[in-house]
Amino acid sequence: MAERVDAGIDVPGFDRSTKDGYAVRARDTFDASEGDPVELSLVGTIEAGDPPDITVSTGEAVSIATGASIPRGADAVVPVERTTRESDEEDDIVSIRTGVAPGDNVMYSGEDVAVGDRAVGPGTVLTPRDVGLLAALGVESVPVVERPTVGIVSTGDELVRPGEPIDDERGQIYDLNTYATAAAVRAAGGRPEIFAHVEDDYDRMFDTLESAGERCDLVLSSGSTSASASDVLYRVIEDHGTLDLHGVAVKPGRPTIVGHIAETPYVGLPGNPVSALSIFRSFVASAIREAAGRPSESAPTLDGRMAAPKRYSEGRTYLLPVAVIEDADGDILVYPVDKGSGAITSLTEADGVVEMPPETEYLEAGGSVTVDLFSADTRPPTVLGIGESDPLFNRLLDRIDGPRYLPHGSREGRRRLRDGVPDFALLAEADAAAVSGETIGRFSREWGFIVSPGNPEGVAEPVDLLDVESFCNLSEASGLRSAFDSTLETIAEERDTTRAELAGGIDGYGWAVSGIRSPARRVAEGEATAGLGLRYAATELDVDFVPIGTQTLSVVAADERVEKEGMRRLRTVLETDSGELAPSMAGYDVSTD
Amino acid sequence: MAERVDAGIDVPGFDRSTKDGYAVRARDTFDASEGDPVELSLVGTIEAGDPPDITVSTGEAVSIATGASIPRGADAVVPVERTTRESDEEDDIVSIRTGVAPGDNVMYSGEDVAVGDRAVGPGTVLTPRDVGLLAALGVESVPVVERPTVGIVSTGDELVRPGEPIDDERGQIYDLNTYATAAAVRAAGGRPEIFAHVEDDYDRMFDTLESAGERCDLVLSSGSTSASASDVLYRVIEDHGTLDLHGVAVKPGRPTIVGHIAETPYVGLPGNPVSALSIFRSFVASAIREAAGRPSESAPTLDGRMAAPKRYSEGRTYLLPVAVIEDADGDILVYPVDKGSGAITSLTEADGVVEMPPETEYLEAGGSVTVDLFSADTRPPTVLGIGESDPLFNRLLDRIDGPRYLPHGSREGRRRLRDGVPDFALLAEADAAAVSGETIGRFSREWGFIVSPGNPEGVAEPVDLLDVESFCNLSEASGLRSAFDSTLETIAEERDTTRAELAGGIDGYGWAVSGIRSPARRVAEGEATAGLGLRYAATELDVDFVPIGTQTLSVVAADERVEKEGMRRLRTVLETDSGELAPSMAGYDVSTD
Repeated sequence: MAERVDAGIDVPGFDRSTKDGYAVRARDTFDASEGDPVELSLVGTIEAGDPPDITVSTGEAVSIATGASIPRGADAVVPVERTTRESDEEDDIVSIRTGVAPGDNVMYSGEDVAVGDRAVGPGTVLTPRDVGLLAALGVESVPVVERPTVGIVSTGDELVRPGEPIDDERGQIYDLNTYATAAAVRAAGGRPEIFAHVEDDYDRMFDTLESAGERCDLVLSSGSTSASASDVLYRVIEDHGTLDLHGVAVKPGRPTIVGHIAETPYVGLPGNPVSALSIFRSFVASAIREAAGRPSESAPTLDGRMAAPKRYSEGRTYLLPVAVIEDADGDILVYPVDKGSGAITSLTEADGVVEMPPETEYLEAGGSVTVDLFSADTRPPTVLGIGESDPLFNRLLDRIDGPRYLPHGSREGRRRLRDGVPDFALLAEADAAAVSGETIGRFSREWGFIVSPGNPEGVAEPVDLLDVESFCNLSEASGLRSAFDSTLETIAEERDTTRAELAGGIDGYGWAVSGIRSPARRVAEGEATAGLGLRYAATELDVDFVPIGTQTLSVVAADERVEKEGMRRLRTVLETDSGELAPSMAGYDVSTD
Repeated sequence: MAERVDAGIDVPGFDRSTKDGYAVRARDTFDASEGDPVELSLVGTIEAGDPPDITVSTGEAVSIATGASIPRGADAVVPVERTTRESDEEDDIVSIRTGVAPGDNVMYSGEDVAVGDRAVGPGTVLTPRDVGLLAALGVESVPVVERPTVGIVSTGDELVRPGEPIDDERGQIYDLNTYATAAAVRAAGGRPEIFAHVEDDYDRMFDTLESAGERCDLVLSSGSTSASASDVLYRVIEDHGTLDLHGVAVKPGRPTIVGHIAETPYVGLPGNPVSALSIFRSFVASAIREAAGRPSESAPTLDGRMAAPKRYSEGRTYLLPVAVIEDADGDILVYPVDKGSGAITSLTEADGVVEMPPETEYLEAGGSVTVDLFSADTRPPTVLGIGESDPLFNRLLDRIDGPRYLPHGSREGRRRLRDGVPDFALLAEADAAAVSGETIGRFSREWGFIVSPGNPEGVAEPVDLLDVESFCNLSEASGLRSAFDSTLETIAEERDTTRAELAGGIDGYGWAVSGIRSPARRVAEGEATAGLGLRYAATELDVDFVPIGTQTLSVVAADERVEKEGMRRLRTVLETDSGELAPSMAGYDVSTD
């Protein structure tokens, strides 16, 4: 609410009955009692909304409904349950079995709300109750605080708008920050306005920034904030705006710019997505919330304790990106996620930041911290898993509400499960054997080599890879790569050589990509002639498959978390849904034991 | 999200540099060290977004920016800070002062996100982070769960749409429940559709309900749910729909109807506004949230302890309407607010309900309870005050964020302050003297009689009221009425009579209205010839004023609450703002001591 709204009318606007019963002159009932009722003649009926055009005289009563207007002459209402109605041919008579005083069961005009009463104060965030009160006062519209318009200027020649085609050859990427920032602006109560991406041309950047400054209450951008010659945006602000400060004493804050453009406040956020959201959260969101009239305490936070220690000593405040998970007791565990290098997955893995002041060099494991969440909608995941990337498991996750699964590979899953962070890990055989924990589910997948349709190079067994033109491998993080390497190891032993020697002879062995389906895709697109992968991926992409082995993946739960609600749900899904899904997915089998 | 969205592209889509530096063949740097750098010839520069149309051969390097595409031939990046650039007329040479391995400072295609990776799962409530991830994957639009359409049918001949004129004579009131329910539906994630108010005519009601049922996913109404002949809505449901149940075993739930109309679920909520919101909160909101794909745990609650005991023993669950306030330690105190009789102010005074199961006959003071809030936006007020209604104080409240003030009169303020519920009370002299607490502010207001312009009846002192045609009094809850009665008492003593005798001679003494400005308004509108009131009200309404006395109002704080932040703010406002506002308000004085 931008202003206070007072009541402009009395509520009720008339003397109304608060009971179903009979409107009477109280004086007529003074002698009435259960044993000795008083009889009054019924002279009419008034329903809610009826004009009360009846007058009640001495010895008379009017039947009246809750909410109806008290007729002239009457000054009280006798509840229906304290009366008896008797009618005969000639008269309508009501027996009153209790005395009432003037005003009994009557709400006088203005008794609920009187003209001039304070109804809704300035700054109120309107709830359904307030809407109800305003409606009851006959108010159709109210003055509200206008949402601030926040211009978001996209910068960077390499950025492409989602939905448009991208040219990998030119090193283009989709524009993430503009849209994440717009969503964050909206969540804080602002109205984002995205300014079409312009090439990093000085004059066009100036035009864009100037028009954003003229049309908006605040202008934001991300990236291009270094003072280097290539950062056109920085130079435009320096030449045509006001550069109030460059860099704040927090990490990540060095690339932050605060200034003015066309007399409108301007903030240049860092280019790294997590840094941009952290700086937005710490320095920008509260200004938008205040301008939008939102209460300041609405910045979302969550209290928890550190799952792992964190050391830091750069002498400035660190906005440490973290994620949260509930432990077995429902307490919040907080763990750092800082992948650096602008990885977008660090954005989806982080829930917020923990502010480490300059003098805090160490956060100990188990210590209490407050997480400043990136948004109010953030909830701890119901389950947190880390491990092997797998298509069947991805589909099983759809059957669970709010899971978080990090497909960082089997080896990483084993390591993190040991550190006590995730609820479970999805592990290949060797890793599953090397950790303690309860196996709550298991399935197998067939793996081998993906080859072009018709298998023109005639690949039949691993040694045939020595003759393929171009092999595409999986990265070492993958459990499937481990299975492949073990196979090579065995063959090398048989041939009295080393795995490295053998691998060195495979053209492309070192071309290791991350996604479990990626080598298959390279083969399908003609970029490789053979690749490591799953039968499922080959079927999906309609390329040929040379089976080599079967790998069992185990879902290993941390012992102390098996009873979490989300984990019980996962167990059910593994027991029932995996058997339902697997038959429709080539190469999968759940009857593993 | 209605469905899972998987990554459709690799991110990055190309091998990219994660540092500013030089793209090289790692093999060329194996011997490099700080003491013995390796010199490479610089053959080009690649910025982010540039096509990498340079090939790096043995002995060569290319200057590369973070995010730029690794050129052919290169397999690693040396960070700029481990290099020295030397140019002369003929050659561009870069000295490499460290060795790098293949892959160093390179993020391979698909390393961040690979095609087919699970990006956002079904049921996810999209946060700015998810929007960022989807943008990075080039996704322009996603399948989301459609908000359910909830039809709200307004019933009751006496109801008028806010904004339209109201006829008090006919006992009309503004339609509150339709709009409060619509706001609650929206807060739960539904899309409310209000069906125009129809008169309580059987055929028209049937048409309205049928079209609501055909167009909506759920139909709601409020009131008119008794089985009596006058409740047309009930009869229409019974004749043309399915009446699944009538009445639920909770208080307030007796009037609740659950059924179907045109095969669409239908819920008839009680007519009392607080009851309607309680039943909506308990039985309807979760269904709307689920249909809208909202997480079930998002129903807002607040934990606190009872400020006062509550006894109840009707053998069914009681959804006790309550309000909340923070005590001095920031803990939540919960107190019942149950005014009954359909008062709309009970709606604005209640924050939610506490569920008392049938077997709980008693909630003890200090006992822990969970409040089911009416909406997620509900915050405890920063200060809670009860007491005299006053125009100056109303304006002062505008200077405080989120106060709650209940103008129930000085006497009620004294009583409640004693019970330990409010932070402060605004009290007339006698009440202020009778309670303990710290007086944090004080001001005086001039009172007397409001008379028609020109004072045609020549009112000059209280006894002149014996001769006026029609006097309008204030109700006994008002501290101003107490001042008036004290004056009459004194006069009665002087005249050797009783106050009652004296008052009995004043025509209209018993016509007592609630609002502090209401008698003045009655005089201004010609309904009364004289009325009790403030000089301020007379000036505001441009009628004449006969001064009788000056009343001091004190803001008395509960001792244990004076240090609450909201109370410190109130004290400041009283000390500074009241002195600023009072001179512009006739009859007020803040220099009271």
